[in-house]
Amino acid sequence: MSKEITSRQQDYSQWYNDLVIKGGLADHSEVKGCMVIKPYGFALWEKMRDQLDRMFKDTGHVNAYFPLFIPKSFLSREAAHVEGFAKECAVVTHYRLMNDPNGGGVVVDPSAKLDEELIIRPTSETIIWNTYRDWIRSYRDLPLLINQWANVVRWEMRTRLFLRTTEFLWQEGHTAHATAEEAIAETKQMLEVYAQFAEEYMALPVVRGVKTPNERFAGAVDTYCIEALMQDGKALQAGTSHFLGQNFARAFEVKYSDRNNQLEYVWATSWGVSTRLIGGLVMAHSDDDGLVLPPRIAPLQAVIVPIYKGEDRKDQLDAKCRQLASELKAAGISVKFDDNDNTRPGFKFAEYEMKGVPVRIAIGLRDLDSNSAEVARRDTKEKTSRSLDGLAGYVGGLLEEIQRSMYRKAQEYRDAHITPADSMTEFERLLDEKGGFILAHWDGTVETEEAIKEKTKATIRCIPLDAAQENGKCIYSGKPSSQRVLFARAY
Amino acid sequence: MSKEITSRQQDYSQWYNDLVIKGGLADHSEVKGCMVIKPYGFALWEKMRDQLDRMFKDTGHVNAYFPLFIPKSFLSREAAHVEGFAKECAVVTHYRLMNDPNGGGVVVDPSAKLDEELIIRPTSETIIWNTYRDWIRSYRDLPLLINQWANVVRWEMRTRLFLRTTEFLWQEGHTAHATAEEAIAETKQMLEVYAQFAEEYMALPVVRGVKTPNERFAGAVDTYCIEALMQDGKALQAGTSHFLGQNFARAFEVKYSDRNNQLEYVWATSWGVSTRLIGGLVMAHSDDDGLVLPPRIAPLQAVIVPIYKGEDRKDQLDAKCRQLASELKAAGISVKFDDNDNTRPGFKFAEYEMKGVPVRIAIGLRDLDSNSAEVARRDTKEKTSRSLDGLAGYVGGLLEEIQRSMYRKAQEYRDAHITPADSMTEFERLLDEKGGFILAHWDGTVETEEAIKEKTKATIRCIPLDAAQENGKCIYSGKPSSQRVLFARAY
Repeated sequence: MSKEITSRQQDYSQWYNDLVIKGGLADHSEVKGCMVIKPYGFALWEKMRDQLDRMFKDTGHVNAYFPLFIPKSFLSREAAHVEGFAKECAVVTHYRLMNDPNGGGVVVDPSAKLDEELIIRPTSETIIWNTYRDWIRSYRDLPLLINQWANVVRWEMRTRLFLRTTEFLWQEGHTAHATAEEAIAETKQMLEVYAQFAEEYMALPVVRGVKTPNERFAGAVDTYCIEALMQDGKALQAGTSHFLGQNFARAFEVKYSDRNNQLEYVWATSWGVSTRLIGGLVMAHSDDDGLVLPPRIAPLQAVIVPIYKGEDRKDQLDAKCRQLASELKAAGISVKFDDNDNTRPGFKFAEYEMKGVPVRIAIGLRDLDSNSAEVARRDTKEKTSRSLDGLAGYVGGLLEEIQRSMYRKAQEYRDAHITPADSMTEFERLLDEKGGFILAHWDGTVETEEAIKEKTKATIRCIPLDAAQENGKCIYSGKPSSQRVLFARAY
Repeated sequence: MSKEITSRQQDYSQWYNDLVIKGGLADHSEVKGCMVIKPYGFALWEKMRDQLDRMFKDTGHVNAYFPLFIPKSFLSREAAHVEGFAKECAVVTHYRLMNDPNGGGVVVDPSAKLDEELIIRPTSETIIWNTYRDWIRSYRDLPLLINQWANVVRWEMRTRLFLRTTEFLWQEGHTAHATAEEAIAETKQMLEVYAQFAEEYMALPVVRGVKTPNERFAGAVDTYCIEALMQDGKALQAGTSHFLGQNFARAFEVKYSDRNNQLEYVWATSWGVSTRLIGGLVMAHSDDDGLVLPPRIAPLQAVIVPIYKGEDRKDQLDAKCRQLASELKAAGISVKFDDNDNTRPGFKFAEYEMKGVPVRIAIGLRDLDSNSAEVARRDTKEKTSRSLDGLAGYVGGLLEEIQRSMYRKAQEYRDAHITPADSMTEFERLLDEKGGFILAHWDGTVETEEAIKEKTKATIRCIPLDAAQENGKCIYSGKPSSQRVLFARAY
C-alpha cells in the first residue's frame, strides 16, 4: 500500500518531486509557479524559522515588517539593483474590480488605475532604505539591526517546488552601520550564522565563500554565500550575506551625523535564506523510500506504532504505548502514538519512512511480555530490540547520534566530491562522470567565467574563504591565477 | 525632553496616532495606506501571535501556507463572496518591467500581460477551498483543521495605523467538517479562543455575539464576533468566526464520501484576527503619557534605570542593577537594564512611560545604602520603595496584579457603558452624550438597521450570545422584538 516513489537512479528530478508531494511537504497550486506549503512542510519550516530567529535575536537583531508593495520608481534608484530585480516581477496596476457589464463575472475597473504602478517586493532593500532615511539621524541610532520574515515574489518561468517558486517565504536582514568595517563584520557574522544553522541543524555541510563580481547580488559590493552539495552532484546556494557598501544609502539619501557632527552616508548589509533550504534538505539526505529528516528540525522526532491482531490485550498494549509516549515527551522528544485502527502497521511503517520521522518504535504483544520494543532509525534503517526501561533516555541519545551520523555521511560525500582539475578536458570529464565541486584556477575575468558556463553549464559557486594561495594557470585561458575557485553545476 | 503627546480630551484621534508613532509601534510608509510595523510594535505582535498560535495548536490546528495570488475568476465562484471582496483589491495585470525606451527608468512591459489577472488575497477562502478539493476524499480526511499566518490586502480609501490599513497581517483559520453540527461547534470554539485571548492576555473584556445578516462575512451562514469598547466610547470588532455552511464546498465542488459511501458537500468555518487588535489594545488601555501594555503580552515587562551623578560609585550601582536583572530573568520576567550614559533618568522615565513598560525599577545611591529600589507601576503610576531582597518575587506578583487590575478597570468602564435605551430620542441622546454600547430592541429587518445607521452612525455590533429573551418594541419602527441587540458607533 506504500505510495510509489521514483528511484533516484531512474529519475532524480521526479524522485525529488515525489518526495515533496507524497511526503506531504508541498503541492502545486492553481496559480502558476506558486506552491501550497502543506501542514507537514510548514511544521518543518516553523522549526527552521524558529531556530534561525533565535540565532538572529542572540546576535542582537530585532524583527519588523515593511510593506509588500514597492513603488515602481524605487527600483530605479539604485542602478545595479534595477538591472537585477526590476524585470521579472508582479506588477499591480489597478485597485478595483467591477461587475462585467456583459455579465461575465468581474473585470478590472479601468477607472481604478494607479498613478504609479506598485511592484510586489522581490526583495526589500529599496522600501527599507527609504524608511531608514527617517529613522537614522546620528551615530547614536546605529547600528540598526533589523530582520523581516516575509513572502516575496520573483516571476519565474521555470519553477520547481521549494527550489524556485514565484512566491516564496524567506527572511531578509537589513542592517545599517557607521563604518565599512562594522558592516563587513556583520556580513561575515551572518554568513557564519547561516553556516552554523546549516551544519548543526540541517546536518548539511557547506562551503563558505564569496561570489565573483558577476554572481553578486544586484547592488552589493560583496556577496558572501554558503554552498551545499546535493546527492546528484549539483550544488545549491543555501544562503547569501551581502555587504552593500553605501550604495543604498546614496540611492535613498540616508546620512548620519558622526561624533564630530559630520554628515556621512550609512553603510549597509543584507542577508537572507528562504524556503529553498527545504529543497536542499530533501535532496541532501533523503533516499528511495522517502524523506530523511535531521532530528533537530524534524517536526516529529519519534513515532510509536502498536502491533496487534483484533482486540486481544489491546488495552494493555495501548496503555504501555501511552506511558512510553509520555516518558518521551517528558524527555523533550516530540512523539506521536499512532493509535489509528484503520491502517495496518506495514502501511504506517511505510508512511513514517516516507515522512522521514527519525525514530520508529514498534511494540507488539510479544514485546509486551518481554518488556521491550523494536527501535528503528530512519537514516540507516537499523533495527534493535530494547528494554522499555530507560527507553526515553536511549531514544534521546539515538536522536543525537542520528543527527551526527547524517552530518558525517553528508560531509563524507561532499568531501569525496571536491576534486581539483588542471585542464578543461579534466574539468569537463569530471563534470560529466563524477559531478560535485571542482577546484580549478580561473583568470579572474567575467569573459572566462561566461565562456566556461556556456561550454559546460558549470558556474563559479564561490571563491572559498579558506582557499590556499597557490600559483597556477587558468584552465580556460592559461593566464596566471593565485588561487583555485569552486565550480559546479548548480540548482 | 519627553515627546509631546496630544491629550485624549484635546483630540482623541491625534492622541492615538501620537501613541502609535511616538511609542515606536508603527509608522506610515511611502505606499499609500500601508504601514511599517516598527521593531517594538512587531515584538508586541510576536507576543500576541505566539500565544494565539499556542491556543490554536492546543485545539488541534496546524499551520500551512497558501498562495498570495488568487485568480480573478475564483472570486466569482461564490456569489455573496464576490460582492463583499472582489471590489476594492490590488490587481496584478503584468509580470515584467522593461527599460523605458524614452529613458525614464522602468516601465511596464506591455507584452507581459497576464491572461487572467491575479488578485492579492483579501482573504483566502477561495484559493484554499480550491485546494481542499484535492485533499478531501473521504470522512477519514475530516476534520481538516488548518490555520495560516499571512499578509492580506484590501484597498482602503481612508486608512488608520493598525485599525484600517491596505495591507495587514493576520491569521485565517479554514476548517472542513463532515457535519454542520461539528462545523458550528468549531465556529463557537474559535470565538471562545479569541474571547479568552482578548480577556486573559490583552486585558480586554469583550461581548460575544452573532452578527445580523447585514453585517455577516460575505459568504457566511453565520458570523460570530467579539466586540470591545474603546475609551472614547466607540466599539471595535476584535475578531470574527464564521460558519460558512456548504457555500464554499459547493462553489469549489468539495465533496467527501461518508461512512455509507455517499458523496456529500463538506461543511466549513473560517475565523481570523489581525494586527487591528494592536489598535484596540492601544485605545483600550493607554493614557495621556503613552502606552499602557498588559504584562502578559508586553515585549518588555520591566526596566531597571540607575540614578547617579558622575562616576561616584557607578561600578557598584551597575553591578547591583545587573544582579537584579539576572534575578528577574531567572524568575521568567523579560527585563532590560538601561545603562545608556547618554540620556538622563528623567528622559528614560518618560521614554518607558511612553512605551508602556509595566514596571519601572529605579536604583540610586541612597537606595544602594538601604538595599532597596523604587518600583513604579505604569498603569496606576503608583511608586513604592522595596527591599532588593526578594524583589524578583515581588515584581512577578506585581505583574500579575497589573494584568488583573487593567482588566478590571477596562471591565468597569465597559460595564458602565452598556446602557439600555427604549426610544430613539434616548438612543440618540446616549450616543451623543455618553457613547458606549446601547442595548435596544430591533425589529429584525435590514431596513430598520440601515435607517438607524443612516440617522445616527450607530450599527448593530452583535446580538449578544447571552442576551435574555425579553419582549419589547423596536425603538425605530415600534414593531415587536424578542430581545435587545447591541448598538454602537464603531471603528
